[in-house]
Amino acid sequence: MKLSLIGIGCGNPDHLTIEAIAALNRADLILLPDKGEEKAALAHLRAKLLARHLTRTVPQRSFAMPKRRKDQGYLAGVNDWHDEIAACWLSEIAQAGHPEHVALLVWGDPSLYDSTLRIAARISPAPEIRVVPGITSLSMLTAAHRIPLNGLGDAVAILPARVLREKGWPEGIATLAVFLDDGSTLADQPEDCLIWWGAYLGMEEEALIAGRLGDLRDEIATTRAALRAQHGWIMDLYLLRRP
Amino acid sequence: MKLSLIGIGCGNPDHLTIEAIAALNRADLILLPDKGEEKAALAHLRAKLLARHLTRTVPQRSFAMPKRRKDQGYLAGVNDWHDEIAACWLSEIAQAGHPEHVALLVWGDPSLYDSTLRIAARISPAPEIRVVPGITSLSMLTAAHRIPLNGLGDAVAILPARVLREKGWPEGIATLAVFLDDGSTLADQPEDCLIWWGAYLGMEEEALIAGRLGDLRDEIATTRAALRAQHGWIMDLYLLRRP
Repeated sequence: MKLSLIGIGCGNPDHLTIEAIAALNRADLILLPDKGEEKAALAHLRAKLLARHLTRTVPQRSFAMPKRRKDQGYLAGVNDWHDEIAACWLSEIAQAGHPEHVALLVWGDPSLYDSTLRIAARISPAPEIRVVPGITSLSMLTAAHRIPLNGLGDAVAILPARVLREKGWPEGIATLAVFLDDGSTLADQPEDCLIWWGAYLGMEEEALIAGRLGDLRDEIATTRAALRAQHGWIMDLYLLRRP
Repeated sequence: MKLSLIGIGCGNPDHLTIEAIAALNRADLILLPDKGEEKAALAHLRAKLLARHLTRTVPQRSFAMPKRRKDQGYLAGVNDWHDEIAACWLSEIAQAGHPEHVALLVWGDPSLYDSTLRIAARISPAPEIRVVPGITSLSMLTAAHRIPLNGLGDAVAILPARVLREKGWPEGIATLAVFLDDGSTLADQPEDCLIWWGAYLGMEEEALIAGRLGDLRDEIATTRAALRAQHGWIMDLYLLRRP
């Protein structure tokens, strides 16, 4: 079996590469995780993107994503969850008659805070895995704000908000790209650092806020809550830079 | 004036997005820096990529890239150099009769260890800048090795080799993505860390090496030197991960 993990960018159908579009059209089966009502808008976006780019009929199968258990500690919970998702994939692939070429769509790029590669590693016998890179949400954020990610000749840390909360700002690094914040992490960050925040990057709903964190913390919190209530979901991301 | 900075990925024409192709075709002038003989192969690749994706005739102007002076210290040298490049752009734009929509191609993505945005900030009166994100060399590296960039829930540092040499491994961060190494930095890194190295990512010449650094240091140095001699240039990149 060939398993293609296809980075599809952040929701704008024009952000697919020629290679990603070709990979979608080569598939014999596209597996689509269904994450329930909150993410229905994302599933709709994905369907639009497929309708736009598929030039032949490719069978698609949705499956209900298992829920991650939160009673075992973070890593153990994630490991069990990935096992369950891999079992779902295998069940769908079997029901589809074991097609040769299976594709999975990955928001952004498969390398960045995404577990599709870790789940694929659980499939036995091991499939031939191919990764098609996509535009990352981080490139979308810096493009929308028209800024470089790094200061001149400087280092950047990419980290989940949980690591920033637990371990603080990595020493000697001026720029942080913070992923997976539930909105609770900015309260503890230095007032005088600069922030570039973005949500729904590349989509019609795109929202951007940039400036001194101390001046914008409340505005970002209020905007984030209001947009989440309005759309039923939010994906957001920000850069922080020490002055 | 509108100035589009268009991320074009790492040399594979299939790595352009639909948006990047549309932006190329909307331009009234494409500015192409000429970096001399060593980079002639890259200029050839860029010309092939334009020939493949342009569906109308867009005027193109090459200009000789100024050389960076190395007698003033790194930051001062870079600042003067960016001023000179901005002056070259303006001169070409004037000679082309001040077209409305000027485009510049950027290898990879304009956010990552690229100075096009910093040079554009020197243009006066300020143009309307648009950034079109591209596939980063880092996404290409992780896709080629079929690995996630980050460990599960972990932080990653992206840094130029110079920072790694001068300041060492950032504290508390297990994974480093090292850019702009001239081949001299791996000698001082811990033997037992893992490395994923890649050169000419996404191109026919793509070369990949992965494993324990202590076992591979010599092989990477030899391979890098041989490939550079063979092709006349090399662009490479690696990830390091503490075990």
